[in-house]
Amino acid sequence: MIYKKKLEKVIKSSKSNLVVGLDTDINKIPLCFLKYKNPILAFNKKIIDSTVENCAGYKLNLAFYEAAGVRGLEALEETVKYIQADRMKICDAKRGDIGNTAELYAVAYFDKLDFDAITLSPYMGYDSISPFLKRKNKLAYILIRTSNPGADDFQKLKSGKKFLYEIIAEKSLKWSKEQIGFVVGANHTKEIRKYTSKNENIPLLIPGIGAQGNDLKNLLNSVGNNSFLINASRSVIYAGDRMDKENIFFKKVQQTGFFLNKSIEEIA
Amino acid sequence: MIYKKKLEKVIKSSKSNLVVGLDTDINKIPLCFLKYKNPILAFNKKIIDSTVENCAGYKLNLAFYEAAGVRGLEALEETVKYIQADRMKICDAKRGDIGNTAELYAVAYFDKLDFDAITLSPYMGYDSISPFLKRKNKLAYILIRTSNPGADDFQKLKSGKKFLYEIIAEKSLKWSKEQIGFVVGANHTKEIRKYTSKNENIPLLIPGIGAQGNDLKNLLNSVGNNSFLINASRSVIYAGDRMDKENIFFKKVQQTGFFLNKSIEEIA
Repeated sequence: MIYKKKLEKVIKSSKSNLVVGLDTDINKIPLCFLKYKNPILAFNKKIIDSTVENCAGYKLNLAFYEAAGVRGLEALEETVKYIQADRMKICDAKRGDIGNTAELYAVAYFDKLDFDAITLSPYMGYDSISPFLKRKNKLAYILIRTSNPGADDFQKLKSGKKFLYEIIAEKSLKWSKEQIGFVVGANHTKEIRKYTSKNENIPLLIPGIGAQGNDLKNLLNSVGNNSFLINASRSVIYAGDRMDKENIFFKKVQQTGFFLNKSIEEIA
Repeated sequence: MIYKKKLEKVIKSSKSNLVVGLDTDINKIPLCFLKYKNPILAFNKKIIDSTVENCAGYKLNLAFYEAAGVRGLEALEETVKYIQADRMKICDAKRGDIGNTAELYAVAYFDKLDFDAITLSPYMGYDSISPFLKRKNKLAYILIRTSNPGADDFQKLKSGKKFLYEIIAEKSLKWSKEQIGFVVGANHTKEIRKYTSKNENIPLLIPGIGAQGNDLKNLLNSVGNNSFLINASRSVIYAGDRMDKENIFFKKVQQTGFFLNKSIEEIA
């Protein structure tokens, strides 16, 4: 199934535009999980169990798994397998490298780990992105407008009448209509209205609500009819307290996911 | 020891500006290595033994290790430990993410794996780079002008009177004088002469000779007195034939490294 079809289908069936970010940090998970052989994996499985009914998928930021060495890599592999087949599996990698290297990343994250999509940094241009467009059922979310404080350093440089991020958005849509999505911080969604309002259905991946804080209502006014996914990581997966007992911790996670998803649904 | 000092010292003591890129691919190493428990690691160790006298250090492109799963990660960790302490250890990661994630990458590659330097993509701005500047003995090589075909897609956009890559070069030098270096493709070194000729000693990491092909003489005319490292990967580590016996394969690697290093030294 092509990516956009799977995305539309799961948004409909789950009644959710939420993706839960599994930014799992061994120093933040409940203490009672440290007894497990692989605490990161055990925690992720419980998070998935607690949130799957209120989300459309999961985003795994590779940094958290790389920082945990071999155990992190095992957790990454097993977590991806554990996610339900109809849910979106997004690899937050922000990679960008020359063609032969990009191809290797595509093999690693699309073929071996079976992620549905990957986030990519556009600075190196077409041949750093194109290897990720060869598989018809996969999608590349290009960093367009990020949510962090340094985002304006280069993304808002003007070249001619356009900002750098606009030039990247337009050029990347020329590379592929079907397999390109945008990463747009929740604080910057207004800026991309000119693309979203054209109703081309560009998949949007939107971080920056929750721990990074931003207004959900403004955000949803800007996404139009595009198949957007809103990411929340820390605000959901660490909704409990480190000292909580397991069942109490995940009750809080479950409720946070439920209410966050409900508020997105109600406003949308 | 701060990075620039270590770099100057090893370039002098090894009489070399060459870094060997350990882009190790299980599908390209000599067949006789497939008998080892971890063929990638076994191959890397032999490459290091065969080249250490003719190079200033090693660059490991993480994609090759990520593509090999847990075995790849083990090979990465053990290879970094195996490299002689006085040689440069460069992590070719091209990362770029928000602050808390960047900090995790810094922990993973600077603290746990003890790389001396990392390559970074600048698109997300200051807070995606600054976590890598906190350790005084480490350096961040920022992607400025890359050697790939798509490099011009965005790097040569003009904003005001300057190209995007020039704005990034100038801004990143403001972030740190001591801990910023530039990645500049061998085909683009002329373009950065205005920085290199100022004699500020900006460490340069230069890919794009060897398999990517480029003129060494033109290149060396452009680097000035800056502490440059020229990277060669495939042309050195796959100098032998897959069917070669072990000793013949590494004799070819050793000779290729020797002659490449000699030609750099003679022209420099």
